Amino acid sequence: MGERGVKLTLAYDGTDFCGWQRQKGDRSVQAELESALERMHGHEVRVAGSGRTDSGVHARGQVASFITDIDSIPVDRFVPALNSLLPQDVRILESREAPVGFNARFDARLRCYRYFMIPGGRALPSQRLYAWCLRSWPDAGKLNAMAACLKGERDFSAFCIPRDESLSRYRYVHGAAFFMEGGQLVFEISANAFLWRMVRSLVGSLVDFESKGLDAGHFRKVLESEDRSLAGKTAPAQGLFLWRVEY
Amino acid sequence: MGERGVKLTLAYDGTDFCGWQRQKGDRSVQAELESALERMHGHEVRVAGSGRTDSGVHARGQVASFITDIDSIPVDRFVPALNSLLPQDVRILESREAPVGFNARFDARLRCYRYFMIPGGRALPSQRLYAWCLRSWPDAGKLNAMAACLKGERDFSAFCIPRDESLSRYRYVHGAAFFMEGGQLVFEISANAFLWRMVRSLVGSLVDFESKGLDAGHFRKVLESEDRSLAGKTAPAQGLFLWRVEY
Repeated sequence: MGERGVKLTLAYDGTDFCGWQRQKGDRSVQAELESALERMHGHEVRVAGSGRTDSGVHARGQVASFITDIDSIPVDRFVPALNSLLPQDVRILESREAPVGFNARFDARLRCYRYFMIPGGRALPSQRLYAWCLRSWPDAGKLNAMAACLKGERDFSAFCIPRDESLSRYRYVHGAAFFMEGGQLVFEISANAFLWRMVRSLVGSLVDFESKGLDAGHFRKVLESEDRSLAGKTAPAQGLFLWRVEY
Repeated sequence: MGERGVKLTLAYDGTDFCGWQRQKGDRSVQAELESALERMHGHEVRVAGSGRTDSGVHARGQVASFITDIDSIPVDRFVPALNSLLPQDVRILESREAPVGFNARFDARLRCYRYFMIPGGRALPSQRLYAWCLRSWPDAGKLNAMAACLKGERDFSAFCIPRDESLSRYRYVHGAAFFMEGGQLVFEISANAFLWRMVRSLVGSLVDFESKGLDAGHFRKVLESEDRSLAGKTAPAQGLFLWRVEY
């Protein structure tokens, strides 16, 4: 029986999950997906995800890979088959054949996150699980002047949590910008990879610094300090979406 | 002790409610609000709402009225006081003094609802509780040609549920139109009042007729028939928002 690699693109509502990664006794996206795959295959199937997302963090374009020995149906038919087995808060958007050696984590070239904020303290209850409600109306121009400092390769130790055990804290940021969309303030950032809590640390600090009248010069100093204690508060999980992953 | 009327504007996420109206053994918005008011006042307070919303239906601008004997704080301070007592899926947006005789239900002049749809079968899991996911891409021009037939005063018996016990099924529709906003197809309709399930019946029929190639002439015939059995399916609750009420 032939083996094929599969690349899945999936979206989820992170509200009722402990996060992407399987954890004992908790509801994770990975465990739901592996359990659906096990029912399809009749045996255990392990998946690799492009990256972990924390509890409450959502995904519009998470990517997962696995090896299948099912050769009776085309790979794109995995979409309806898996969706019929998955809970409503996880949806497979696309399924494509990939080389057997393809790994969604190690082969990812670029990850893009979006962080959604509602300025002016007026979030609707129906938005509370999908955006961060800001009391203030931050100046997008000032936020963007700070965000422009992020581009390029540098050590992001000031913007991760101490528990992050990455061998290197250098990451390459391709782009980072704030823009308005549908009444929401959106921060989009893409990088080769991210440290643990990096996006939420950055958003929390950028919004905090702007509200205190601190400028891009100050933000650059904190960035270059590599000192976590100089950063602002971490923004809450519910505004964050893993938006897309490129290979 | 003086009595004052209060007009509250509130928003809620209808997902975990049996609807606006108090029902024994079920979680309703009215009961949550009355329980918060009772804690503030030290005695029972009954509220009137501009209209009932069904389970799963949301509100951006529901209006409720009640009489208060609290004269130690300005009426606008009821906003933070009530929000600190209410669950996160109900938020008071505004509190204003009103005549003691003001009644949110009987004094309402116009109600406006919005119904949100995601065309093309691509709703994110984070949108599933707040919009109806359509498999097709309906033609907004054709939908609007049908919606234009709704304006004016007429009997809407074809678009309510048989259990509706209104004395008259005549309602005056001020406006009804479809438009695109942020990737969503939105139906907005305003009328002096609505029959039970009227908006969802209308949306379900309009989308159904468009998909079957039926035109405004057909829709007008169904409308004039006053015959429920000629209408299409009722659209699901989660796309519907009580948007605003005018007095």
